[in-house]
Amino acid sequence: GFAKLDHQRQKRTGFPEVVFGEGKSVQQIISIISALKQNINRVLATRVDEQKAAEVIDAVPGLTYNPVARTLFWKHEAEPAVLYKGYIAIVCAGTSDLPVAEEAAVTAEAFGASVKRIYDVGVAGIHRLFHHLDEIENATATVAVAGMEGALASVVGGLISNPIVAVPTSIGYGANFQGLSALLSMLNACSPGISVVNIDNGFGAGYYATLIHKNHNKNKID
Amino acid sequence: GFAKLDHQRQKRTGFPEVVFGEGKSVQQIISIISALKQNINRVLATRVDEQKAAEVIDAVPGLTYNPVARTLFWKHEAEPAVLYKGYIAIVCAGTSDLPVAEEAAVTAEAFGASVKRIYDVGVAGIHRLFHHLDEIENATATVAVAGMEGALASVVGGLISNPIVAVPTSIGYGANFQGLSALLSMLNACSPGISVVNIDNGFGAGYYATLIHKNHNKNKID
Amino acid sequence: GFAKLDHQRQKRTGFPEVVFGEGKSVQQIISIISALKQNINRVLATRVDEQKAAEVIDAVPGLTYNPVARTLFWKHEAEPAVLYKGYIAIVCAGTSDLPVAEEAAVTAEAFGASVKRIYDVGVAGIHRLFHHLDEIENATATVAVAGMEGALASVVGGLISNPIVAVPTSIGYGANFQGLSALLSMLNACSPGISVVNIDNGFGAGYYATLIHKNHNKNKID
Amino acid sequence: GFAKLDHQRQKRTGFPEVVFGEGKSVQQIISIISALKQNINRVLATRVDEQKAAEVIDAVPGLTYNPVARTLFWKHEAEPAVLYKGYIAIVCAGTSDLPVAEEAAVTAEAFGASVKRIYDVGVAGIHRLFHHLDEIENATATVAVAGMEGALASVVGGLISNPIVAVPTSIGYGANFQGLSALLSMLNACSPGISVVNIDNGFGAGYYATLIHKNHNKNKID
Amino acid sequence: GFAKLDHQRQKRTGFPEVVFGEGKSVQQIISIISALKQNINRVLATRVDEQKAAEVIDAVPGLTYNPVARTLFWKHEAEPAVLYKGYIAIVCAGTSDLPVAEEAAVTAEAFGASVKRIYDVGVAGIHRLFHHLDEIENATATVAVAGMEGALASVVGGLISNPIVAVPTSIGYGANFQGLSALLSMLNACSPGISVVNIDNGFGAGYYATLIHKNHNKNKID
Amino acid sequence: GFAKLDHQRQKRTGFPEVVFGEGKSVQQIISIISALKQNINRVLATRVDEQKAAEVIDAVPGLTYNPVARTLFWKHEAEPAVLYKGYIAIVCAGTSDLPVAEEAAVTAEAFGASVKRIYDVGVAGIHRLFHHLDEIENATATVAVAGMEGALASVVGGLISNPIVAVPTSIGYGANFQGLSALLSMLNACSPGISVVNIDNGFGAGYYATLIHKNHNKNKID
Amino acid sequence: GFAKLDHQRQKRTGFPEVVFGEGKSVQQIISIISALKQNINRVLATRVDEQKAAEVIDAVPGLTYNPVARTLFWKHEAEPAVLYKGYIAIVCAGTSDLPVAEEAAVTAEAFGASVKRIYDVGVAGIHRLFHHLDEIENATATVAVAGMEGALASVVGGLISNPIVAVPTSIGYGANFQGLSALLSMLNACSPGISVVNIDNGFGAGYYATLIHKNHNKNKID
Amino acid sequence: GFAKLDHQRQKRTGFPEVVFGEGKSVQQIISIISALKQNINRVLATRVDEQKAAEVIDAVPGLTYNPVARTLFWKHEAEPAVLYKGYIAIVCAGTSDLPVAEEAAVTAEAFGASVKRIYDVGVAGIHRLFHHLDEIENATATVAVAGMEGALASVVGGLISNPIVAVPTSIGYGANFQGLSALLSMLNACSPGISVVNIDNGFGAGYYATLIHKNHNKNKID
Ligand SMILES: Nc1ncnc2c1ncn2[C@@H]1O[C@H](COP(=O)(O)O)[C@@H](O)[C@H]1O
Ligand SMILES: Nc1ncnc2c1ncn2[C@@H]1O[C@H](COP(=O)(O)O)[C@@H](O)[C@H]1O
Ligand SMILES: Nc1ncnc2c1ncn2[C@@H]1O[C@H](COP(=O)(O)O)[C@@H](O)[C@H]1O
Ligand SMILES: Nc1ncnc2c1ncn2[C@@H]1O[C@H](COP(=O)(O)O)[C@@H](O)[C@H]1O
Ligand SMILES: [Mg+2]
Ligand SMILES: [Mg+2]
Ligand SMILES: [Mg+2]
Ligand SMILES: [Mg+2]
Ligand SMILES: [Mg+2]
Ligand SMILES: [Mg+2]
Ligand SMILES: [Mg+2]
Ligand SMILES: [Mg+2]
Repeated sequence: GFAKLDHQRQKRTGFPEVVFGEGKSVQQIISIISALKQNINRVLATRVDEQKAAEVIDAVPGLTYNPVARTLFWKHEAEPAVLYKGYIAIVCAGTSDLPVAEEAAVTAEAFGASVKRIYDVGVAGIHRLFHHLDEIENATATVAVAGMEGALASVVGGLISNPIVAVPTSIGYGANFQGLSALLSMLNACSPGISVVNIDNGFGAGYYATLIHKNHNKNKID
Repeated sequence: GFAKLDHQRQKRTGFPEVVFGEGKSVQQIISIISALKQNINRVLATRVDEQKAAEVIDAVPGLTYNPVARTLFWKHEAEPAVLYKGYIAIVCAGTSDLPVAEEAAVTAEAFGASVKRIYDVGVAGIHRLFHHLDEIENATATVAVAGMEGALASVVGGLISNPIVAVPTSIGYGANFQGLSALLSMLNACSPGISVVNIDNGFGAGYYATLIHKNHNKNKID
Repeated sequence: GFAKLDHQRQKRTGFPEVVFGEGKSVQQIISIISALKQNINRVLATRVDEQKAAEVIDAVPGLTYNPVARTLFWKHEAEPAVLYKGYIAIVCAGTSDLPVAEEAAVTAEAFGASVKRIYDVGVAGIHRLFHHLDEIENATATVAVAGMEGALASVVGGLISNPIVAVPTSIGYGANFQGLSALLSMLNACSPGISVVNIDNGFGAGYYATLIHKNHNKNKID
Repeated sequence: GFAKLDHQRQKRTGFPEVVFGEGKSVQQIISIISALKQNINRVLATRVDEQKAAEVIDAVPGLTYNPVARTLFWKHEAEPAVLYKGYIAIVCAGTSDLPVAEEAAVTAEAFGASVKRIYDVGVAGIHRLFHHLDEIENATATVAVAGMEGALASVVGGLISNPIVAVPTSIGYGANFQGLSALLSMLNACSPGISVVNIDNGFGAGYYATLIHKNHNKNKID
Repeated sequence: GFAKLDHQRQKRTGFPEVVFGEGKSVQQIISIISALKQNINRVLATRVDEQKAAEVIDAVPGLTYNPVARTLFWKHEAEPAVLYKGYIAIVCAGTSDLPVAEEAAVTAEAFGASVKRIYDVGVAGIHRLFHHLDEIENATATVAVAGMEGALASVVGGLISNPIVAVPTSIGYGANFQGLSALLSMLNACSPGISVVNIDNGFGAGYYATLIHKNHNKNKID
Repeated sequence: GFAKLDHQRQKRTGFPEVVFGEGKSVQQIISIISALKQNINRVLATRVDEQKAAEVIDAVPGLTYNPVARTLFWKHEAEPAVLYKGYIAIVCAGTSDLPVAEEAAVTAEAFGASVKRIYDVGVAGIHRLFHHLDEIENATATVAVAGMEGALASVVGGLISNPIVAVPTSIGYGANFQGLSALLSMLNACSPGISVVNIDNGFGAGYYATLIHKNHNKNKID
Repeated sequence: GFAKLDHQRQKRTGFPEVVFGEGKSVQQIISIISALKQNINRVLATRVDEQKAAEVIDAVPGLTYNPVARTLFWKHEAEPAVLYKGYIAIVCAGTSDLPVAEEAAVTAEAFGASVKRIYDVGVAGIHRLFHHLDEIENATATVAVAGMEGALASVVGGLISNPIVAVPTSIGYGANFQGLSALLSMLNACSPGISVVNIDNGFGAGYYATLIHKNHNKNKID
Repeated sequence: GFAKLDHQRQKRTGFPEVVFGEGKSVQQIISIISALKQNINRVLATRVDEQKAAEVIDAVPGLTYNPVARTLFWKHEAEPAVLYKGYIAIVCAGTSDLPVAEEAAVTAEAFGASVKRIYDVGVAGIHRLFHHLDEIENATATVAVAGMEGALASVVGGLISNPIVAVPTSIGYGANFQGLSALLSMLNACSPGISVVNIDNGFGAGYYATLIHKNHNKNKID
């Protein structure tokens, strides 16, 4: 075939291969998802637009599409939805950041984490964030999604004690340079306890937070 | 001489010419300051390092040097220190931003404004800022100085109602790119009510805040 | 709902929340505008294209659309159009800068300021600017809009004494880099008394000028 | 004083404030370290050069200096060196990356983590890395430090299952652009399970890895 | 005509002129290919999309179209397909890099080289590469094609002893900056034995590898 | 020798080779100047600092050093200073731009042009420029030198009818990026009739203006 | 009207205002051209696409459209086509650079210069250029148009003695960055006698060359 | 020890490890060279400044220092200087490029290649290059070193038929951006047959050319 699927990945890195839908044809997505379903119990595809998704769903039974996150997901019916206790907090600054925040959320859920969504709490109206601080503090890890100047990550970083995965988004215009502004902000955050993934990489952040989450004390089954 | 002094500037733009000391020799600074003293009542020079300053002070009587702001200032003895009621708030994020914040403060004071200094209140410990919100709100204009990711400007912008002049500083390293990070943050601030001057341009911010300040209702002598 | 509206913003920052239309669906714009109309007397939405605007107007009675500025505006009938004496000057360099200049003008007017429009006075034919200098000087604040090399801001800055809010536009091509050229020019202006907002951010400039304007002595009702 | 120390930081974010020595005078470092010693049991200062360090050590008893990491550390004698079971793996590509790798290691140790150092295992001789894979896999978190093209992070990311904190270094020349090359590589890593901190920010990576480490199942005291 | 064809190029530089199809009209491509067929035995056109290709094929007999590489090729029937012994290895990281890898492969084949294609062996699953090391080592030259962070080139560079021509692709998003990330990686590769061509320049890499290949000892007809 | 002098250059390009002193040792400069003196009547060296210049002057008789322009010049005594009628205007914005303006002036004079220097006429005090407009208009070509935002070139360009050679200088700080700001301004000038040379390239501008000057009608010896 | 036409421009700068068609509506172009025709004898509009051009030609009698240059031109019938003796040479590197080269040519011709077109003589087949050297040398000024790496300008610069106006084009891909590569090449040309205009600015180059041309000795009517 | 030497590298990649001297202490260089001398017959160290070199030579017998290339070299007395027939051509544009050209030359010679040096043949005086074309054409590979605009690589690329390794140098100033200009030129060269290494990476180019050279037909011992 055109692709060399990496069936050992779950053994090696803890999670199975995830399909990156962007630039792939409907036929390619169908054939990769179908192949993966033979080997693993949870299959996720990201960056699949609404039209492609409809065609894939027609061809492969049992897929769920999330139109905001633009993800397709399937899990074996024997597989429980949630695998760990506790939860990951996902905060985002504005409503335009939702697709990226949802990509993170869906990814975390796909791999068995519970998620609390705390959206539209950007620093222009910082009191909105303060209403949710305890909820964020009690998570095992926090994903902070923001575009424009990305100040949300620094502010959250100064207020809570769990590790924050910051995701700059490309929301903005002009001197935003497609997310460069938020990316640089997050890399230069004056609060420690923050690490950064690529611009608009909700998937990477959800994946990373789940890596932390699944080994957290709080989640240990005693 | 080598320079064409702009003696009409005060009439035209409200404030007299200010000497930019960087790259000028001691002799040049002395001769420009001396010439300006003949024509105007308040003479300011910025970016003058400690060693040059000592030599200029020896040659020109009546100058005050501020070693943090790196400024020389002289005013005619008949001239009052403060010309307007009310004050400008100058906030800065960290102790490393002090030279820029002080350049702004000294510039504002040089032109007759009162200043309240609220320093080291960066968002890594945001409670420090909240202790001073009323003081900032009651100013006629606010200068917000920050390096690294420059989030302070956005946070202040979401909390107060007077115009904010944001100054990115070159404090930081790596992906900070000599202040680019804070500059982009401030230009992309999600809170409105913020305008921006050049990286490390404390002078420009102090000058601009004073332009706003001198015409504020609060300062009107009824 | 999908968004957390910030109804206290007017109390906190002096002006109510403004709807940023870019990337929002017609339904989202309608529902946000409708919600805001319940709470505040002046509702502004920016970056709404002609087609979306027609649909929103159909759904929400009383809105005015400005096709150059691409803004929707509504005010309560009891609310006066103009709230302050005096005016803001809005100058722009070329006819291509009009949409940005108008966004600034409409924003200022939405919040009760009077505006004088002085358009197409770029430095390629500088005499056109000189015909309007007195008008600009008598404003309480000036918004200077220019693309290409953005020299207009520096020239105006050397000639008048009120605070200038400079807006770089993305007009140009090649080494203009979508407005970077004008942005850098304005940040490095050799004239003081200039502060800068993001590329194409007419809204931000109009908002900022109005913050200055509403507290100006000239506008005080004695 | 010139600085507002943030004594609540440990309560809020899990770890106490760390002194960033760059740009601080010997007197400032001495006074901040002394103040912190009154309040907390573990005091760390980073970016302190050899000469400053000697003067600070003379003035403050009980400090240890690490000349490669350029750190000063003090802990109360009652405080145990190691607080958690398990360890953090710190891998670096070349000998020139050592200062950054050591800053990460010392930071993690300062906050009670054990560290395994696996240095000079860059991809030019990839077999060197393979000799240590089990050791890395068994860590709770991995810090991967690399300059030049930063490929080490991607390679490690494809081979192990714990979360990787990648630190680009400024080692290189020409089109390296002071670490930009490695930074972009790490942000665009084709392997998931990688998050990134600022160029040369060993401190941030060590801090972040310890945040993960201290809550890891493996470290739970049953 | 509109173009000055360079019929001496083969004599001067070893290979005839190749038609760069991007931005050329169907008519221009037809007329250039037809002219070249009069003078040389092997005619190649790159960057020709499917629709244009169909029209050109209709007009010029004997052309072969490769839809992945987007190339048109014709050779005189008397001309043998393969001119040299041995082969060039072409490795690529992911399935999205295929068009660039195929452009390199087709170019090499057009000029008489044999090619071994080793695709989808990126470092996220590095064992896939190891299965093919001997095949790569036995080539006379290797073309390494990769997007995202481009680590594949460095890894291959540390493992084999023939010259590697690295081609960064524009595959990626966010801080990838249209291939800048992979380009910088490859220029800064810590392994020597790597040289680099422009982003997405499969043609250039295939051409260059064939320049090396045709003079290789292994290919000498004794 | 280490260099291949280009003795035919004058025949080919109108002017002889000029020595670029930066990075050359005193010995190299002496030997090149001495060799050129054998062949041509006018020898110019640029970018020679004061200390090197002193040593070169000691070794080679008849050289003149201009410490602001940092140039060494020699002409054969039989050679007239001025070769053409009319003059080149050289305008600069601030006193810090003088070294670049003088490099242009000295280069033009070295090749036989007359020069009018109109310095410190930047747009912050634009009336200073207006006093000199006739003088500039009557030149055969104008060199416009400016740092910071480089607006001077656009303003002059809108007011005069001879060709302008614009030279951006690296004067400025912060978002000036070592002259990038002025360079982009000049390339994007809204006035036509402006062409641009490299940042700080006074030599190139003086040379280019003299190329225009020597063939100007005004300079024809009837 | 929406625009302030600059009818004095011809008097001030030697040539009348030229209409920049990009971003203007058909109605705007028609009304500006019509207004200019009242006042000046030669009217030029650039960047007008084929469709707009057809509509403008329908509305305004006497216009000529050049579909490669994308220009509209009208001159009064009493006005001679050529106003000066001699000619400007316009050289370009490849056939893709034609639109820019033609924009330069049409602009020069619009203002009365004769032009020799020497196209497709890029350095990949440098002998093509050598065939035309005398023709270029005998021009009064040369416009050199090139994309990709822009080496043509340097090569021509080392071979001829009239002033060269270099125009980088945006032709290329990948690390070309929309013409940045050629722009930097031309600004850093090792041959003197070259000045540069903006990327793709054929108009500016044609205009500038004509400014030089019209005052050239060769063109003097004795 | 602090470093993991890679003694298998010669077996794996054809050439032994080379010491990169920059940033290494004299002691480190001595200990690495000494260790390598035990295992391999040809030891090369690059980027060693004159002062360090003197100290290393004192400690390690048999080293040769090349002060222009800044290299140290040792070979076992039984080892012949030249291992292959034929030669590599190394051309450079200007005298300032010599250190990089020599680094390439010394590296090639260290690994047994013969080298022809053709220096100071930049395109400003292109006839100098033409005198040497046959010599370049007869090489097995060509290294082309150039700073400023780097046009030399394109010109050579259009004239000869062996593979060219292009090395951009950081020679230049202003918009050269430390070699970025030449780097982009070489990546965008309109002539094929060119590949590129990092800015100033003479070592990489010499190494790569030798990889090609040692397997060239011409060099085969029949
Ligand atoms: N620290 C500063 N940063 C930016 N501009 C300054 C500063 N200090 C003075 N200036 C400006 O520089 C101008 C004087 O420049 P100069 O003629 O070189 O002394 C003054 O009119 C001020 O507008
Ligand atoms: N090497 C380092 N790199 C980045 N941040 C650091 C470093 N060392 C300490 N810090 C941070 O800098 C803060 C202290 O800054 P300051 O108040 O200037 O001493 C601490 O709270 C740390 O979060
Ligand atoms: N200040 C300068 N800036 C740019 N180029 C210069 C300068 N001075 C001389 N040159 C050019 O550098 C060439 C000589 O370079 P070189 O062979 O290194 O001495 C001359 O032919 C001039 O064209
Ligand atoms: N001048 C140079 N430029 C780039 N890489 C070099 C240079 N000299 C040596 N190297 C590479 O650097 C590696 C050694 O790095 P290190 O282990 O730090 O000594 C060698 O294997 C070479 O591949
Ligand atoms: Mg919101
Ligand atoms: Mg602090
Ligand atoms: Mg106009
Ligand atoms: Mg090593
Ligand atoms: Mg794959
Ligand atoms: Mg001045
Ligand atoms: Mg061609
Ligand atoms: Mg030379």
